[in-house]
Amino acid sequence: MGATVNEVETKPAARSPVVALTCGDPAGIGPEVVCLAWSATDAHSRARLRVVADADMLADVLARRRGMPRLGLEMVAPGDRRPSDPDTLLVVAPGPTAGPQLPPPAAIEPGVISAAGGASAARAVLAAFAATRHGMADAIVTGPLHKEALHAAGYEVPGHTELLARACGLPDESASMMLWLPATHRATEPVAGLGVVHATLHESLSSAIARLSSSGIEAAGLRLVSLLAALLGRPPRIAVAALNPHGGEGGLFGDEESRLVAPAVARLAAAGVAVAGPLPADTLFLRASRGEFDGVVALYHDQGHIPVKLLGMHRAVNITLGLPLVRTSVAHGTGFDIVGKGLADPSSMLSAIDAAVRLVAAGWPSPAWQTTER
Amino acid sequence: MGATVNEVETKPAARSPVVALTCGDPAGIGPEVVCLAWSATDAHSRARLRVVADADMLADVLARRRGMPRLGLEMVAPGDRRPSDPDTLLVVAPGPTAGPQLPPPAAIEPGVISAAGGASAARAVLAAFAATRHGMADAIVTGPLHKEALHAAGYEVPGHTELLARACGLPDESASMMLWLPATHRATEPVAGLGVVHATLHESLSSAIARLSSSGIEAAGLRLVSLLAALLGRPPRIAVAALNPHGGEGGLFGDEESRLVAPAVARLAAAGVAVAGPLPADTLFLRASRGEFDGVVALYHDQGHIPVKLLGMHRAVNITLGLPLVRTSVAHGTGFDIVGKGLADPSSMLSAIDAAVRLVAAGWPSPAWQTTER
Repeated sequence: MGATVNEVETKPAARSPVVALTCGDPAGIGPEVVCLAWSATDAHSRARLRVVADADMLADVLARRRGMPRLGLEMVAPGDRRPSDPDTLLVVAPGPTAGPQLPPPAAIEPGVISAAGGASAARAVLAAFAATRHGMADAIVTGPLHKEALHAAGYEVPGHTELLARACGLPDESASMMLWLPATHRATEPVAGLGVVHATLHESLSSAIARLSSSGIEAAGLRLVSLLAALLGRPPRIAVAALNPHGGEGGLFGDEESRLVAPAVARLAAAGVAVAGPLPADTLFLRASRGEFDGVVALYHDQGHIPVKLLGMHRAVNITLGLPLVRTSVAHGTGFDIVGKGLADPSSMLSAIDAAVRLVAAGWPSPAWQTTER
Repeated sequence: MGATVNEVETKPAARSPVVALTCGDPAGIGPEVVCLAWSATDAHSRARLRVVADADMLADVLARRRGMPRLGLEMVAPGDRRPSDPDTLLVVAPGPTAGPQLPPPAAIEPGVISAAGGASAARAVLAAFAATRHGMADAIVTGPLHKEALHAAGYEVPGHTELLARACGLPDESASMMLWLPATHRATEPVAGLGVVHATLHESLSSAIARLSSSGIEAAGLRLVSLLAALLGRPPRIAVAALNPHGGEGGLFGDEESRLVAPAVARLAAAGVAVAGPLPADTLFLRASRGEFDGVVALYHDQGHIPVKLLGMHRAVNITLGLPLVRTSVAHGTGFDIVGKGLADPSSMLSAIDAAVRLVAAGWPSPAWQTTER
C-alpha cells in the first residue's frame, strides 16, 4: 500500500509477485529453514518475499539457534510492495490469535509439542491466506507444522492444506497435493524433475484399494497434468502406476489393472494426455527419475512416497491442488530432534519458494478459478 | 576328478568352493553378463568358477555379441576341481534335454521368446543342481530366464526358484528369497548393504493384505536374520516395515500395525533379534540405506522392490531361502531389448557371485540342513 502502484504493476503477469512465507511451528526447524532459504534463494530477483511471523520469535531464532545466517529484520505492512533482498528479512505480523491466551511465539520451547506452537503456525498461515484474498500476496509457502500441536491449539484438521480448504469455504477433500521433486544435475546420477499425484492418500491400504476408482485415477491424472504443464511450461508426459506386483502379471496377481487403471489411462489418452500405464511400480519410478516421464499417478500413499523420499527427501515440495490459490510447502516435518543444532537443510524450502514463483508466473491455478473466487 | 584332492581340500571349510554359473535364457543378456563377470570378478582367488552351459552357444556369444571380453573356453568334467582364472571360461556341459527335440542353444535367436531358450535355461540349472547333490559344486549362481519361454518349454513354474524347490523334493512355497543390495562407497551417496525379505510376494495386493499374518512376518524376520548373519559375519540389525501410511498413524489409518506387525516384532525381540518396527515405509528405506538397519522385512512385493530397484537395480541380487543349497541370482531380467548391443551391465552377476562365495564360506545354509539333505 505504501509503494507506488504503476500501470505495469497492476498487470498480474508482468509484476513481480509477492510470496508469503510462514515458519510452521516455531518449536521446529521451520524458522531455521525460512531464514536459511531467505539468505540463499535467488528468487528475490523475480519475487517479493515476506515472512508472515512474529518478529520477536524470528529475532530470537536468528540470535540463538546455531548456523543461522546474518540477516537484518524489518517489519512491513501487509500491503507494502517493496522488493526483498537476501540481507534483510521483511516481516509481516500475523493478526492476534483467536482463542485461549497462549505464551508469545518467542517464548515457545524448541523441540516440544505445544498448543502455542500449533496456534502460531495456524495464525501465520491464516494471515498469509487473508493477504492473498486481499490482493496483497500471490502465493503462500509454508514451513512444517506438527499435527498434535495444531490439535492442542484447538484446530481439528490434519494440516495446513485442510486449514486452507476451510478458509476457502471448501470441503477438506476438495484439496489434494502433488509431491514435486525438482531436477538435479549431479554428474553421477542425474534425476529429472518428477511430480507425483496420489489417487488415494491418508487412509489404510485396505481402504485405499477398496476406494480406488477409474474416475479417481483419471481425475488424479488430470490434476497432475495441469500442474506439471504450469511448472514445466510444456505438456508433460505422465505414467500411471499399477497396483499389483509386476503390473498384475496379466491378471494372475489381481484385476485392478485391467478393471480400473487401463480404462482411466485410455480416457486420459483420449483427452490428449501423453500417458502410459498401468506400469509396474518397482521400475516405473526408476524410469521416471531418468527422464522418461515428468509425472506419475501413484495409487496409494507409500507407492509415491517411498520413491520420492529415496530420490530426494530434502528437496521435495508439496504443492496444493484443488484450491483457488498458489500454495507450496516443504515436504519434511518439524525435525524436533535437530532443532537449533545447525543441521536443518533448507533445500526443500528453496524448492518450495522456486515452485511458488514459477506457478504464479504461469498464471496457475487457471484464471477461471481466480475469477470465480476473488 | 583330474585335479589332485589333497587333505586340506577335503575339509569343506578350508577348500575353495566350486561355484556353478548358469546363463539363464541364451536369447537374453545372461550369457553376456556371465562372460563379463567371469573376466572382471576377483572371486577366482577364493572360488573355482564354472559355467554350466552349451559351449557352442558361449563361443557364439563371445564371437558375435558386442562388448564381450577376450576369453578362452575350455570344457571340463563336472567333477574336475581345477582352479579358474579370469582368462579362460571353464565350461561344464549340461545333460541332454528331456522332452521334445529343440534347436541347439547356439541356434536360438537373440531377443526372442522361445521354447528352446526356456529349455536351455532349465537344463543348465538342473545340471548345476545335480552337481551340488553329487558334491561337485557348492553353490549355484543363475542368470536371468524368461518365464514365458520356460512355459513354452513345458516347465510349469514361475522361475528358477520353484524349479530348484521341486528338484529338492520340496513344495514351491518352502522356497523364498532375499533381495540383497551390497554396500557401495560412492563418495556422494554411500549406500549401506541392505537385505530385504518379503512377508508376501507374488500375489495381488488385496490378497497379500488378507494373507498377512503375525507368524508370517516373524518367520520372514528369522529368515532375514539367518541369511544376513551369514553374509555379514555378525548379528544384523533389522526393521519391519509398517503396512499403512505413516505407520498406521496410531490406528487412524488401519490396525495391521498393532494387530499383526507389533506382535511379530515383539516375538523377534524376545528371541534376541535386534529389531525395530513397525516403521513407516516411506522413510524406513532411506534410514536403512544410510546404515541404520542391515535388513528390512517388507510386507508386500512393491514395498521392498520399489526402494531396492531405486537404490541400485543393477547391483541387486536374489538369494534363495528355504532350500538346502546356496543359490544366488541376478535380480534383473533377460533384457531382450538390449541383447548384443554392448549394454549389458554385469554388476548384479558380480554381486551374485560374491554373495554365493561368502555364503559357502560362512557354512550357510546351516550344517543341519546339509546333513539332512546330502
